[in-house]
Amino acid sequence: PDTPLKQEQAADPLSSWNEGATKKAIIDFVEKTTTEGSTDFVEVKNRIATFDNDGNLWSEQPLYFQLIFAMDRIKGMAEGHPEWKNEEPYKSILEGNVEKALAGGTKSILALVMASHAGMTTDEFNQEVNDWLATAKHPKTGKPFNEMIYQPMVELLDYLRANDYKTFIVSGGGVDFMRAWVEEAYGIPPHQVIGSSNKVKYEVSEDGTPTLIKQAELNFIDDKEGKPVGIHQYIGMRPVFASGNSDGDYQMLEYTMAGNGPRFGLLLHHTDSIREFAYDRESHIGQLNKGLDDAEKMGWTVIDMKKDWKKVYHFEK
Amino acid sequence: PDTPLKQEQAADPLSSWNEGATKKAIIDFVEKTTTEGSTDFVEVKNRIATFDNDGNLWSEQPLYFQLIFAMDRIKGMAEGHPEWKNEEPYKSILEGNVEKALAGGTKSILALVMASHAGMTTDEFNQEVNDWLATAKHPKTGKPFNEMIYQPMVELLDYLRANDYKTFIVSGGGVDFMRAWVEEAYGIPPHQVIGSSNKVKYEVSEDGTPTLIKQAELNFIDDKEGKPVGIHQYIGMRPVFASGNSDGDYQMLEYTMAGNGPRFGLLLHHTDSIREFAYDRESHIGQLNKGLDDAEKMGWTVIDMKKDWKKVYHFEK
Ligand SMILES: [Ca+2]
Ligand SMILES: [Ca+2]
Repeated sequence: PDTPLKQEQAADPLSSWNEGATKKAIIDFVEKTTTEGSTDFVEVKNRIATFDNDGNLWSEQPLYFQLIFAMDRIKGMAEGHPEWKNEEPYKSILEGNVEKALAGGTKSILALVMASHAGMTTDEFNQEVNDWLATAKHPKTGKPFNEMIYQPMVELLDYLRANDYKTFIVSGGGVDFMRAWVEEAYGIPPHQVIGSSNKVKYEVSEDGTPTLIKQAELNFIDDKEGKPVGIHQYIGMRPVFASGNSDGDYQMLEYTMAGNGPRFGLLLHHTDSIREFAYDRESHIGQLNKGLDDAEKMGWTVIDMKKDWKKVYHFEK
Repeated sequence: PDTPLKQEQAADPLSSWNEGATKKAIIDFVEKTTTEGSTDFVEVKNRIATFDNDGNLWSEQPLYFQLIFAMDRIKGMAEGHPEWKNEEPYKSILEGNVEKALAGGTKSILALVMASHAGMTTDEFNQEVNDWLATAKHPKTGKPFNEMIYQPMVELLDYLRANDYKTFIVSGGGVDFMRAWVEEAYGIPPHQVIGSSNKVKYEVSEDGTPTLIKQAELNFIDDKEGKPVGIHQYIGMRPVFASGNSDGDYQMLEYTMAGNGPRFGLLLHHTDSIREFAYDRESHIGQLNKGLDDAEKMGWTVIDMKKDWKKVYHFEK
């Protein structure tokens, strides 16, 4: 029986998308892969859809939100680390100089993540993320970070699931950071979230209580060629549908499209400087260069955010 | 609406289990955790159940089946490796001396697995496993290995899923080896299978075809304290229900039981030398020693295979 929600979705499952080639391409693909008898029919068990997160399901400007969380943690932990007053990148963070703190590139970022994401139990970390989300605000919109999610993408996730697709996140972001909030935001359960991770260690205290302690040691980087690797190790199947927004998603889309039968590759191009942020080939965050060059040749559909989205965030008027 | 299957399950969801304390403990637990209003009610999203595989969902005697597969692969690959005639453990395998081949313990087993499970694409490996299952026979029963699965455990998996539990495999066995056949055997999809793994590498050939190549390098060992670690990295939630058969499952059960609210730990004790195999404290395969000592103290339920199971395999009369 059709619930009211189902009827509404049947009316327009993607109501925050403007009519046009992009919306039509998505709907045509979902319909042809889920219509029995269609030559492009895909069995339910093979309906795997993977989504990048930063800049694809939520914003990533002016800085990856996880990095803002890491810097806020560093400030909160500073009292226990007097040595940070004289040590980069901590020193610059404590002085409020973000640009200088990140001048060391990947090395600085790794140092921040290791210092702020390790040495606690997984339960404690989860709590830290939730506490932060409850109070921290985005510098441009003043909204909590977990409201900076793209309404059209939330609708796309719902639409795919209503058509028996399983939706997964495949992100370069930290898996423990994402799992704290993505189920509520996107309806994606923790075991369908793949991300970068540090090692964790199993320890049993003297009173017999077992805990998992987050270690300051990399376990897996889920970016670029790491994305198809992560998809294999965690999902064990090639996706039918893959969605991303930067050159870090190139290999995920390439791998997805190379499977037999119908496949869909989707790239989000950030073209809207008013409602969101406009950036692509030259951006330090979410750079999209090779992907834009090759999208047509590779058969990927490109979302023009400014043109294709009626609404970016749910809180817009 | 009740389907005929649902009606039958409602009549006796665990029809291959004998009446008794074990069966009753399982049913009581599932009922109390799924009855709204019960103080032990568990929300659907938290109903995570994890199962060891070897010796828990299928047999593991006289040798882990994956090891038999590895040795069959070594024989099949021998023509391309003339050096194996003079090199252990390959030499002994080619001479049919399994005991001698495995005399080197973990080191020999790792060598066999690396030689037989690497240097091919993930798709090719999957095909190899399926080809092997289609022809290889268990030395005692003469049945294909994927029929050596425990009918009472298949019913338990079905029963848990009928009550909105998500069922996962958490096994020391190779994840790619299991994913080739477990969905058909147990109804568990590839992304709910956690196991040991080698690294894989993403490569794009000159004609643009991307592949994932299995490497001869360990990625993760999903055994003992590796099980709670694997559960965290892949599932991201603590199970409510955990089931295993050896001391390799000790930490998984310990971690599971330490969560708040109702938890169920299940240990399968191999007591049936006629219908299956009888082994525990002294066995080189599936050793169960500390687990037997501590089960009562830890609140784990122990299955006595001989007494608790009406039937072991589906093909029994
Ligand atoms: Ca991104
Ligand atoms: Ca086992």
